[in-house]
Amino acid sequence: MYVVVDLCIIPIGVGVSLSEYIAECQRILKEAGVTFELHAYGTNIEGEWDDVFAAVKKCHRKVHEMGAPRIATTLKVGTRVDRPQSMADKVRSVEEKLKQS
Amino acid sequence: MYVVVDLCIIPIGVGVSLSEYIAECQRILKEAGVTFELHAYGTNIEGEWDDVFAAVKKCHRKVHEMGAPRIATTLKVGTRVDRPQSMADKVRSVEEKLKQS
Amino acid sequence: MYVVVDLCIIPIGVGVSLSEYIAECQRILKEAGVTFELHAYGTNIEGEWDDVFAAVKKCHRKVHEMGAPRIATTLKVGTRVDRPQSMADKVRSVEEKLKQS
Amino acid sequence: MYVVVDLCIIPIGVGVSLSEYIAECQRILKEAGVTFELHAYGTNIEGEWDDVFAAVKKCHRKVHEMGAPRIATTLKVGTRVDRPQSMADKVRSVEEKLKQS
Repeated sequence: MYVVVDLCIIPIGVGVSLSEYIAECQRILKEAGVTFELHAYGTNIEGEWDDVFAAVKKCHRKVHEMGAPRIATTLKVGTRVDRPQSMADKVRSVEEKLKQS
Repeated sequence: MYVVVDLCIIPIGVGVSLSEYIAECQRILKEAGVTFELHAYGTNIEGEWDDVFAAVKKCHRKVHEMGAPRIATTLKVGTRVDRPQSMADKVRSVEEKLKQS
Repeated sequence: MYVVVDLCIIPIGVGVSLSEYIAECQRILKEAGVTFELHAYGTNIEGEWDDVFAAVKKCHRKVHEMGAPRIATTLKVGTRVDRPQSMADKVRSVEEKLKQS
Repeated sequence: MYVVVDLCIIPIGVGVSLSEYIAECQRILKEAGVTFELHAYGTNIEGEWDDVFAAVKKCHRKVHEMGAPRIATTLKVGTRVDRPQSMADKVRSVEEKLKQS
């Protein structure tokens, strides 16, 4: 099952600067071989369900190892079985609608 | 790794009545042996990471099998390594603060 | 426009104990006159759009005043125009489906 | 109060093609004068709290007018009072950490 995910990990109990934790998660996603793209409020990821969720679990483990006692993550998870649709397809589809009018 | 999750599955492309899909997911959670509780905008689940996410994956598969071509899920995922905290603990902790003042 | 919301406010930069902040938000919701119910991973709220979002804004202001330099909130927001549906209706609808089978 | 938001609007009851609804919301955000950027699983928005949430409400109204009987939206809402931080700052901060190592 192919999945498109939006991942937003919030480490709690380590102050207000969270970018080093997010950067470490980007490294984990890169090693995981999934497609991903950072945006201003999370990271979009696409790939096989098991690969993506294994990477998310590794991110939680790593952020705890880095010292965060608590983590609150928000995930949006999209699957579809009618046709394949990549992250790039989703953006392109909206942009085409915007050009048409 | 123990996890407390809030799961909200939205089947897309099957009209506006979604409760039969949600009910089916409740059955999957029951079979999975995780602790869970339905609320008005999702279902809280607690258990071992792998058990909880295996159940979430089963829910996606089932909802597709029931006819939904597309699913958009929102998950909140909480882990902590400083101390154990159940779903009941979390609610109790807030309620105690409310009584104190 | 009537709305059913799931609100989860995460104060950042104030350590790992968040229940006093959540308790304060419960007080704000009570004063706001909206219907609400705490669960293990957030608070469900229903009411008129403007009333609910004014209360959410007050919660952010208050949590900052209490000392949190940063807040990360997740909101689920449901509206429907086909028929009225309360938080209690949503839970009841799933529970009825569970009984039927 | 300045806010950075991630908005993901899911129209329910109008089939599986949602891009025309999303495109219409992009137009509303443009008219609203807030800064925004579409990504593969939502739209990041920044601006004054009242401006951003007025635009979100307009999006809900418009999507209902376009025929969607029901909408399920997920919003992530970030505020901070310690220092200003734009959407671009957030991405840059992570990218700098990635270069350093």
